[in-house]
Amino acid sequence: LNNVLVDLDNVLFNDQYPLLIEAVPLDKRFAVWSHLNIDIQRITFIQVKTETRLWLVDSLSDEQCFELLAEIDLEELLEIAEALPDRFLTYAIKQLDESQKALYQQAQQYDDNELGHNLDYDYVRISEKLKVSSAKRLVYKGLNNYTEEFYTVNKQGILTGVVNIHTLLNADDSALLSDLIESDFLKLTANTDIDDASEALILSEKMSLPVCDESGLFMGRFTFASAYYIKEADAAKKLNQSGGLNKDEDLFSTVWQSAKNRGVWLGINLITAFLASGVIGLFEVTLQQVVLLAVLMPVVASMGGISGSQTLTLIVRGLALGQITEANLKALLIKELKVGLTNGIIWSVIIGGFTYLWFNDLGISLVLGVAILGNLIAAAASGVLIPSILNRMNIDPALSGAVLLTTVTDVVGFLVFLGLGSWFLL
Amino acid sequence: LNNVLVDLDNVLFNDQYPLLIEAVPLDKRFAVWSHLNIDIQRITFIQVKTETRLWLVDSLSDEQCFELLAEIDLEELLEIAEALPDRFLTYAIKQLDESQKALYQQAQQYDDNELGHNLDYDYVRISEKLKVSSAKRLVYKGLNNYTEEFYTVNKQGILTGVVNIHTLLNADDSALLSDLIESDFLKLTANTDIDDASEALILSEKMSLPVCDESGLFMGRFTFASAYYIKEADAAKKLNQSGGLNKDEDLFSTVWQSAKNRGVWLGINLITAFLASGVIGLFEVTLQQVVLLAVLMPVVASMGGISGSQTLTLIVRGLALGQITEANLKALLIKELKVGLTNGIIWSVIIGGFTYLWFNDLGISLVLGVAILGNLIAAAASGVLIPSILNRMNIDPALSGAVLLTTVTDVVGFLVFLGLGSWFLL
Repeated sequence: LNNVLVDLDNVLFNDQYPLLIEAVPLDKRFAVWSHLNIDIQRITFIQVKTETRLWLVDSLSDEQCFELLAEIDLEELLEIAEALPDRFLTYAIKQLDESQKALYQQAQQYDDNELGHNLDYDYVRISEKLKVSSAKRLVYKGLNNYTEEFYTVNKQGILTGVVNIHTLLNADDSALLSDLIESDFLKLTANTDIDDASEALILSEKMSLPVCDESGLFMGRFTFASAYYIKEADAAKKLNQSGGLNKDEDLFSTVWQSAKNRGVWLGINLITAFLASGVIGLFEVTLQQVVLLAVLMPVVASMGGISGSQTLTLIVRGLALGQITEANLKALLIKELKVGLTNGIIWSVIIGGFTYLWFNDLGISLVLGVAILGNLIAAAASGVLIPSILNRMNIDPALSGAVLLTTVTDVVGFLVFLGLGSWFLL
Repeated sequence: LNNVLVDLDNVLFNDQYPLLIEAVPLDKRFAVWSHLNIDIQRITFIQVKTETRLWLVDSLSDEQCFELLAEIDLEELLEIAEALPDRFLTYAIKQLDESQKALYQQAQQYDDNELGHNLDYDYVRISEKLKVSSAKRLVYKGLNNYTEEFYTVNKQGILTGVVNIHTLLNADDSALLSDLIESDFLKLTANTDIDDASEALILSEKMSLPVCDESGLFMGRFTFASAYYIKEADAAKKLNQSGGLNKDEDLFSTVWQSAKNRGVWLGINLITAFLASGVIGLFEVTLQQVVLLAVLMPVVASMGGISGSQTLTLIVRGLALGQITEANLKALLIKELKVGLTNGIIWSVIIGGFTYLWFNDLGISLVLGVAILGNLIAAAASGVLIPSILNRMNIDPALSGAVLLTTVTDVVGFLVFLGLGSWFLL
């Protein structure tokens, strides 16, 4: 235990304690947790993964959990509310003041991945009736992070414009605020998807943008920091997905929890594998007589799988960036088919040649070469078509595309290879 | 062509033209490019992927390229310098003014992934001898983005401290700047890795941090925006790698270029596949007699591959976050072996049972079950050990880990399955 603490001695910032806790095996985790002071415990409790937080809730007494939640603020509560047991959620909401409670209710009307659920409520709005001298005093008092502008609202709370801080500072104290307000400005709507909002914010080159509800009521702002953390969480999620992991899996999840988390993917994969077995089963007679076909099966399947997943990765990214539309899909398909054909010819010659040198059997080398060629072309077609179709059905192609693709390349690969083998070699 | 342009009609920001260009098939790309005005062409030329830029350089006359580079600034040049043909690089450097040329030489002394190569040179440093009133005037003139502080330097250019803008604005004009300078402040060193620097910046909750060389000389600053773009590029790179793609591959790379880009990965994979074939080849006699073994081979290989890649993903992320050290590696290995054992028992019962129902052959069902169990345990061990060993050898485990892992799971899976089959079923 002390070793771990020493090795992680370069942990300087409060933000790194969640990483520390999650790097410690379960049976020693409680001892490390008890070493932390209450302030760090509070921060850590909010920032750990959902699964770790639930483990903490289970391991601690209710009183200890209440203490952890005693100073929670609105943004923190919004982050963890979803997976918090009811009695703790009720307690945490009670700790908020009236205005924060109202904001909490407002945020809960939006989905996790909508902007309205991910706002920053730092004070940046001013009444459009404010005096310039009073507005300047707000600047001198010190601005919140990421503040280049004040957002002005009218009596009804509708966002009417923005006032640049530098314009404000340069203005005469006797000037009217209304003369400084820019009424042509970028704003975001609360029901926007957070990914789209992040992109709009970054393209705007601002540090934050104001957010309104559908009727124009000012709700809060969306900052660069949120965009950064959303991007980071999204990247971690995608990497986990590409490895077939649940997004919440933790280094030291319990054995049972890990087994459960990973079961879904193993189960889906098993169906694919049995499908491939079914195809091979069709050719039992052939395999018995030409056993070399069985020996070379992995080559056909894996070359198709890798080649298809290369095309798939390209297309999934193009779809995510909005680069792929009806208009260029056909051109893209043709290009990928040409790549598949080119790669198919090159690799079938290499593989066929090598197989001939290895087994000195012209028939099987030819059959293998043709099967590789066919499978690489099928892989190219499915690599383009599967994600495009999934995308049109509103299914995330990053998640299910790879399974469907390897199913196709396995089935096509074995069918062509063993089919040709039965036809020519028997 | 018009269809593409209409479909992409919501392209509003200059920053999206690179996406547009790369979404157009090669044969029509030049026509779209010619439609853009010179300012957008200049921005686009900088922001497209390296491969697209090289295609542009090839397609345009030298004079047209010179025109594209005529207004290039230092940060832009640093971004594209590496892959620019020499005659254009020389021309572009000539366009910089003397101070920018000096900064360019300075930046080139650092590696691509070192902070010194990724600095922002906006004017934010002031002499520590400046009058408070003059410093205030700089604020009123308008600050650059991401500026919360001025960085003060002495005569030799050594960074001596920071002055918070709000402290400055609140100070009396007659005050001394030296009284406002905080000499206890965070700074970064130019030879820091950009990922570490990004993390430090984000944990500091500042919008930018000053950067010095090893002797303390002020060099520039590192901003939140750079950290965001580095994170984004890194995420895109990792996703491409996980799909076996070259980082620079473009939707409409030429067929030949694509085939070449993807060849490396296909070649490496082929070696793995032939290795698996070699193992299967050891059991030709067995396969001939018990052809069901050949039918069920894909189940053993793919369950091991998926399960191992789940462990691998977890470990690679833990290594990247610095959560895995000598101290907890053993505990982690034991936990993953337990998960492998648990999953192995569950899935071998399910798979063995299903196989018995399908083929009504107790022997082969038992052999398959035991092989699945063994392969899942081997997968867990390799999923922990392979990335840890690669990491200690300073090889990026995200890139080569997956290939090595499936080699192990294929070889172990086939050895155990066919070995047990030879022993019990013949």
